[in-house]
Amino acid sequence: MTKTLTASLLVIGNEILSGRTQDTNTSWIASKLAERGIKMVEGRIVADVEEDIIFAVNELKSRTDYLFTTGGIGPTHDDITSATLAKVFGLELETNQTAVDMLRAYYETDEQLTPARLKMAQIPVGAKLIPNPVSGAPGFKIENVYVLAGIPRIMQAMLDMVLPDIDGGPPILSNTVTCDLLESEVAEELGKIQDNYPDVSIGSYPHFRSGHIALSLVLRSSKTENLHVSTNEVIDMVRRLGGEPRAVSIKTAAQNPA
Amino acid sequence: MTKTLTASLLVIGNEILSGRTQDTNTSWIASKLAERGIKMVEGRIVADVEEDIIFAVNELKSRTDYLFTTGGIGPTHDDITSATLAKVFGLELETNQTAVDMLRAYYETDEQLTPARLKMAQIPVGAKLIPNPVSGAPGFKIENVYVLAGIPRIMQAMLDMVLPDIDGGPPILSNTVTCDLLESEVAEELGKIQDNYPDVSIGSYPHFRSGHIALSLVLRSSKTENLHVSTNEVIDMVRRLGGEPRAVSIKTAAQNPA
Repeated sequence: MTKTLTASLLVIGNEILSGRTQDTNTSWIASKLAERGIKMVEGRIVADVEEDIIFAVNELKSRTDYLFTTGGIGPTHDDITSATLAKVFGLELETNQTAVDMLRAYYETDEQLTPARLKMAQIPVGAKLIPNPVSGAPGFKIENVYVLAGIPRIMQAMLDMVLPDIDGGPPILSNTVTCDLLESEVAEELGKIQDNYPDVSIGSYPHFRSGHIALSLVLRSSKTENLHVSTNEVIDMVRRLGGEPRAVSIKTAAQNPA
Repeated sequence: MTKTLTASLLVIGNEILSGRTQDTNTSWIASKLAERGIKMVEGRIVADVEEDIIFAVNELKSRTDYLFTTGGIGPTHDDITSATLAKVFGLELETNQTAVDMLRAYYETDEQLTPARLKMAQIPVGAKLIPNPVSGAPGFKIENVYVLAGIPRIMQAMLDMVLPDIDGGPPILSNTVTCDLLESEVAEELGKIQDNYPDVSIGSYPHFRSGHIALSLVLRSSKTENLHVSTNEVIDMVRRLGGEPRAVSIKTAAQNPA
């Protein structure tokens, strides 16, 4: 049995920590990685502060197989990610000619390559560029660290450039069984099912729907057969406890346990 | 000059790291803390895995003045936050009679106090309870760590119970100046304004609006006068560079720099 590859994400930006901006990059990247069979095991958010970025990058790049960062690679004074990553790896920051060419292709004339824009071509020496089909300025990769833009649309395009080329595993699939039982009513039996299927991760998520508490039971695994069988056991359990498995969302395309 | 108090947030839950659930607790808590003059400087997300929670709690509670956690205090097998926090602080986990009384008041009859529900009254010895007006089961506080529910509605109610009693500072206020200039056009002058106002945090956030790139310039500070003056300088800068400061969102109630 091969080990599941792990990833972490470092979201860099004051705007997330001030509460001004709702981060959506974490859930997007987590979902895309799960499709590639890579498990996101930690997310962090830090401000545009050099020492905080250095601390987090050093920890995460050694704790997980892949580290993705988002944010801080634009042209303004608060964009310090590229310079800080250079420090983390002990590399010089240089004007990367390929990055300049990418910006030149995007901005069309040399006059538009202002000093502020050319700052976005300052890349640590030896880093591999990640093309940006949306707005020109590239991200980059050093060792197991992937440096992406913070704007979701640009980040998503960069991630699409990166994902096909990285090592992954069988996709992590998920089934959701929703019911109107209370969490405390299913707790004991659900725990037993979890014990019987250690390679299926079973979570229980109460939420409010139309003023009532509803309960989603979520099963996740890269083992299709065990996911299938354990989902059927959860459905049986809900019925046995007097509940109605009303919405069974199955993301396992080939398997329908209903 | 007194030091600004800092906080961190640890979001605990597989459902966030799988991409299934969009975290909204971070931005909510960050905003509420800013109103109390407390600066959120780091956020983390970990799965329901004991060693990951212990590692993060130990780091964050010593790196910031306050640590808030959300998630993992329900009745099911994957709710391990309370037991794990007891381990972090070397405390026994006990059935807290006040917590039992809170559950009893919520569930109305003794018969409804099932073993699964009573699990939610298992609290580290000596922890101070945080009442839960929404669904009974309390959170708790140990030293500088506040353990809250993960469901946003419940977390928000618990936070309202906690915030009036903690030390804060002057509120961190923010102004937003939106324009249609490009980030690279304002980068140099904006950097100069930032240099002149070190106690104002100035961020530049391009985003897409109606298919065009727009730019929000956000100024944040607890120093009202400097925030006021620097915001006026940013507005002047936008006009000077040929932009129109179209939407100036001022959260400083008493000060309108327009």
